[in-house]
Amino acid sequence: MKPLFAKPLSVLTVGVSSFGDAIAQCGAPVTQLDWVPPAGGDRQVAEALARLLNEPMVEAANAKAVDRYLAAQPRLSTVGIAREVLPRMDRRMILHAGPPIDWARMCGPMRGAIVGAILYEGWADSPQRAQALAAGGEIAFEPCHHHAAVGPMAGIISPSMPVWVVTNPAHGNSAYSNLNEGLGKVLRFGANSAEVLTRLKWMEKTLAPTLRAGLEALGEIDLKPLMAQALHMGDEVHNRNAAASSLLIKKLVPALLKSGAPAGDVAQVIEFIAGNDHFFLNISMAACKAMLDAAHGVAGSSLVTVMARNGVEFGIRVSGLGDRWFTTPAPVVEGLYFPGY
Amino acid sequence: MKPLFAKPLSVLTVGVSSFGDAIAQCGAPVTQLDWVPPAGGDRQVAEALARLLNEPMVEAANAKAVDRYLAAQPRLSTVGIAREVLPRMDRRMILHAGPPIDWARMCGPMRGAIVGAILYEGWADSPQRAQALAAGGEIAFEPCHHHAAVGPMAGIISPSMPVWVVTNPAHGNSAYSNLNEGLGKVLRFGANSAEVLTRLKWMEKTLAPTLRAGLEALGEIDLKPLMAQALHMGDEVHNRNAAASSLLIKKLVPALLKSGAPAGDVAQVIEFIAGNDHFFLNISMAACKAMLDAAHGVAGSSLVTVMARNGVEFGIRVSGLGDRWFTTPAPVVEGLYFPGY
Repeated sequence: MKPLFAKPLSVLTVGVSSFGDAIAQCGAPVTQLDWVPPAGGDRQVAEALARLLNEPMVEAANAKAVDRYLAAQPRLSTVGIAREVLPRMDRRMILHAGPPIDWARMCGPMRGAIVGAILYEGWADSPQRAQALAAGGEIAFEPCHHHAAVGPMAGIISPSMPVWVVTNPAHGNSAYSNLNEGLGKVLRFGANSAEVLTRLKWMEKTLAPTLRAGLEALGEIDLKPLMAQALHMGDEVHNRNAAASSLLIKKLVPALLKSGAPAGDVAQVIEFIAGNDHFFLNISMAACKAMLDAAHGVAGSSLVTVMARNGVEFGIRVSGLGDRWFTTPAPVVEGLYFPGY
Repeated sequence: MKPLFAKPLSVLTVGVSSFGDAIAQCGAPVTQLDWVPPAGGDRQVAEALARLLNEPMVEAANAKAVDRYLAAQPRLSTVGIAREVLPRMDRRMILHAGPPIDWARMCGPMRGAIVGAILYEGWADSPQRAQALAAGGEIAFEPCHHHAAVGPMAGIISPSMPVWVVTNPAHGNSAYSNLNEGLGKVLRFGANSAEVLTRLKWMEKTLAPTLRAGLEALGEIDLKPLMAQALHMGDEVHNRNAAASSLLIKKLVPALLKSGAPAGDVAQVIEFIAGNDHFFLNISMAACKAMLDAAHGVAGSSLVTVMARNGVEFGIRVSGLGDRWFTTPAPVVEGLYFPGY
């Protein structure tokens, strides 16, 4: 202690502020950390929390949940159509990112993407009518996560959209994601111009059946080895998917050429996926969803199995707490905008 | 020094051995490093070497050679046929790896590969006749490096073989390499069975024209950016080319599909290159050759521009010393053999 006090002191304090106040009154610099013990002074809550520390039932439940997570073997199985393969998907339903949110509270990009999805589905013939329809309560909005699904950004999945089907034979569950549109003006960022809708239709009519034929020729793809190799090649498999997309292409392209799909379609599809380093993103998301859903629903487990945001709120779900969401307002991020915005 | 001598001494000596001998006689452990100053005690040579240290003409020449090396921009241009595109390639000539060597002194794998090349060219109809032909002096054997070319392992290039053409517009030179056959039984390891020769014929008749059509549709590929990206993805672009091969496939495949080449050929070619993580190796070798040849021939430069071995000797060439080789016997390496060898 002696050498410590020989130097000028700069003090960090945590907890009760009167310690720091006393030091500040003596003229020393002091920083009070913005942290208090959990439970906010509520004795009952604090005792309940304390009882959970090293609680054998919770520890055992968490071990079981983590085992299921680690044992998962996500496999890219096929490409389906949302209304046909997603559990509990209705014909007038649109899925979105994050925890539940109604139209009135949605952020702009999510609304833009929903307007795009309504136009794409042909439920309205103008953005104005699509907005009126969305606001009128005739369309059900539900989180992707209520349907074993995930999607990047706005995360919009409407009934006609193609979805990746990722199976996890180790637990017997499946997970789903929409297909990546590329960068620039795309639905997931809220764009809904003719260019965006034309691409979505092409994805439904050409990309999806061609990929399905390719995967049928190839057989299922084990995703963990592919993702592990991509991680060693510099991807983090979220915002950088250059290696994973390349490795996927290398597997998929010979199969596409043997699939019997029309040659012109195959050429278009290969050019599309070769031109989009993010193509693998939605597959890695579905793989993670399949792994985490396997860990969900273990009674007593405190493992967080969902972390997701809808642009307004951030929410989590906990393995042992069923379908319940725990949400908090999402902070406004310092965004990087496309030129002109 | 004092704390040093307080501990038990373990001495390394370099140079005159009597220093070490004296220590050893006192009973201390001593290791005499196997190094002596250059020139082996020859005063004239030592003085000549000393004059070269920081010699302004040599320094300037080396700066110029390194500039040319760094300024090189190797581009994958097309696939040609050795007899048509290699400088000074004769109709009865076979190129090999490393410094010059005649048939009598060649190692087994190089002889095996040359027998394979003779059978592939149709100059003989049995391995025995091919060996007799090779030993009879009717076929000229020259290093790839005498023809701006490189090839992995035995490095055999015969007149009918397809070669990558890599141009370096910055210096106006070109370099060449044969095409990678994959792993297993292949000519570059000395194999010459029917399987090997059939593959070589397919490479000449199908792979080469299809790649040429693809590159024509695509245009030249700048190799430095592609190799730089591959280096960041874990390749060293010699024994690991997984990323570079994938990146090449991603560029090449859409072009192949648009090239007008027969669809069946395109499918075969894509399957072949997608199944061979080493496919890019020969391209990176030709790129390096193009860069180093640009640095060769600078009067006064001591930059080593070639390091190559033929299985018997290792040799170098120096920028300012023209076509001369400096060779030394190649040590026998501890090899990793295929099962059964």
